[in-house]
Amino acid sequence: MVQRLPSRVSIVEVGPRDGLQNEPTAIPTDQKLSFVRGLIAAGLTDIEVTSFVHPKIVPQLADAADLVARLPQSANVTFSALVPNAQGLERALQSGIRRIAVFTAASETFTQKNINMTIAESLSAFRALIRRAVECGLSVRGYVSTAFVCPYEGDVDKRRVREVTQHLIEMGVDQVAISDTIGAAAPTDVVDTIGYLLETLSPKMLALHFHDTYGTALANVYAGLQLGIETFDSSAGGLGGCPFAPGAAGNVATEDLVYMLDRMGIETGVTLSKVLAAAGIIASVLGRPLRSMQWTHAHPAHT
Amino acid sequence: MVQRLPSRVSIVEVGPRDGLQNEPTAIPTDQKLSFVRGLIAAGLTDIEVTSFVHPKIVPQLADAADLVARLPQSANVTFSALVPNAQGLERALQSGIRRIAVFTAASETFTQKNINMTIAESLSAFRALIRRAVECGLSVRGYVSTAFVCPYEGDVDKRRVREVTQHLIEMGVDQVAISDTIGAAAPTDVVDTIGYLLETLSPKMLALHFHDTYGTALANVYAGLQLGIETFDSSAGGLGGCPFAPGAAGNVATEDLVYMLDRMGIETGVTLSKVLAAAGIIASVLGRPLRSMQWTHAHPAHT
Repeated sequence: MVQRLPSRVSIVEVGPRDGLQNEPTAIPTDQKLSFVRGLIAAGLTDIEVTSFVHPKIVPQLADAADLVARLPQSANVTFSALVPNAQGLERALQSGIRRIAVFTAASETFTQKNINMTIAESLSAFRALIRRAVECGLSVRGYVSTAFVCPYEGDVDKRRVREVTQHLIEMGVDQVAISDTIGAAAPTDVVDTIGYLLETLSPKMLALHFHDTYGTALANVYAGLQLGIETFDSSAGGLGGCPFAPGAAGNVATEDLVYMLDRMGIETGVTLSKVLAAAGIIASVLGRPLRSMQWTHAHPAHT
Repeated sequence: MVQRLPSRVSIVEVGPRDGLQNEPTAIPTDQKLSFVRGLIAAGLTDIEVTSFVHPKIVPQLADAADLVARLPQSANVTFSALVPNAQGLERALQSGIRRIAVFTAASETFTQKNINMTIAESLSAFRALIRRAVECGLSVRGYVSTAFVCPYEGDVDKRRVREVTQHLIEMGVDQVAISDTIGAAAPTDVVDTIGYLLETLSPKMLALHFHDTYGTALANVYAGLQLGIETFDSSAGGLGGCPFAPGAAGNVATEDLVYMLDRMGIETGVTLSKVLAAAGIIASVLGRPLRSMQWTHAHPAHT
């Protein structure tokens, strides 16, 4: 039996942003930089390093400008930062970051609670923001949160996901990360929703962003690969979510994703053992075991 | 996009045997019986309860005969027990169990280290054993261990897996559990090896038995479902393996399997919350958190 899967996959490492923004402890900038250097050493070339959200809202990332200013210079690595609004964009522009990401959702209730806007309002706010970013030479990524299941509304209508995704692309976003924010999706959800998106969109425009609340993340990645998706988000050490808050598990761990892709003969350019080494920098600051199968396997005494 | 997946899946619960045989602590028979009653209450109808291996080799299951004698009587539930040899079969026959399982492997080195025989010797020993079991009215299941990766030999030849599987079926085994003993397989391994087996065997004859060492178990289940496999082994609480011995993670957790199948609209007859309740009986005896995503999610304070 032969199936065509991508021969190479791009991993977007979101640990420094999606991971660390949810940790109760703010990590010192120096350690964040060590983490980022470790990620680069592991071969990761797309790293979302921080968010220009208001420091009062996410104090864990209050050092965004300082962090960006001190990032190692590497021609092969693209750093990006989340930008929630026009003020954030100005801070991002001043910092010198070359790529930003904007985020909205496919569920009205979640968008309201998360960013206090309707989806339409968020898209309309992004229009000017994206235009200015592009004019200033930045590239822009988009996130569509709660693309499968919303914690408030339950199953999300795939037509809504496509609508929002297409809006983002029309406004100048070059890649949309379709996100299972609460990690509830199963492979059939991926086949259903992503299959529907691919009726009108190229797989090159999409990334899949899974959280691993219930253990389905790698199964969902496999479903995505079968659909021709070539970009997946992940977080070293499975960082993210709050380990003490049910419903908010971390991103699928970069090392678990790399293990599966390695075993499948799909190239990533990433070295598993070095991802674990990078995650270890954060583990020692957090003082708790990380949430990945590779980590558990490599550190049995911690389980 | 439409894909045909089975509408109903049978789960073979192996926690009381594959799970508990690997725990450092021997669980008292009363608690094992509570666990089994909990599993039945959860809707599990195929339960491998113990092994008639020599009590000196696996003291954790030395109470096999006593346990079987005290099992609740239920017309809808099939209990089974592992039988390693002729002496074990006599003990099994005396106990009154109606279904047994025999086990060999697809890797010569593993078979030698595990049961001190060549694969050919193990099959030849099973021939008489299975004949006698069937004559006595028992049904027989078979396991092919290290069907994908061997800890000593690496990748396992699928032709060897098919050869051993066909031998077992010819000798009277009604179902063969193709087992990823060390949990190293990825979905492409499943497609490759199981796809090859299905060229000559019906999916009804096969079960898939995954351990979840690296997080790929549910992805492998999804690959199996796509091939038409309808029977999967799992263990409540992800029991099994030794949490202190790298390379021996537990079975895929029944509750994680049920979550994914529920979400995919595939019927199992099993109630997730009740599987967790059953696992809780063992967790309190072991005094450690269990290794399943559902458990971690439901007991965040333990992580």
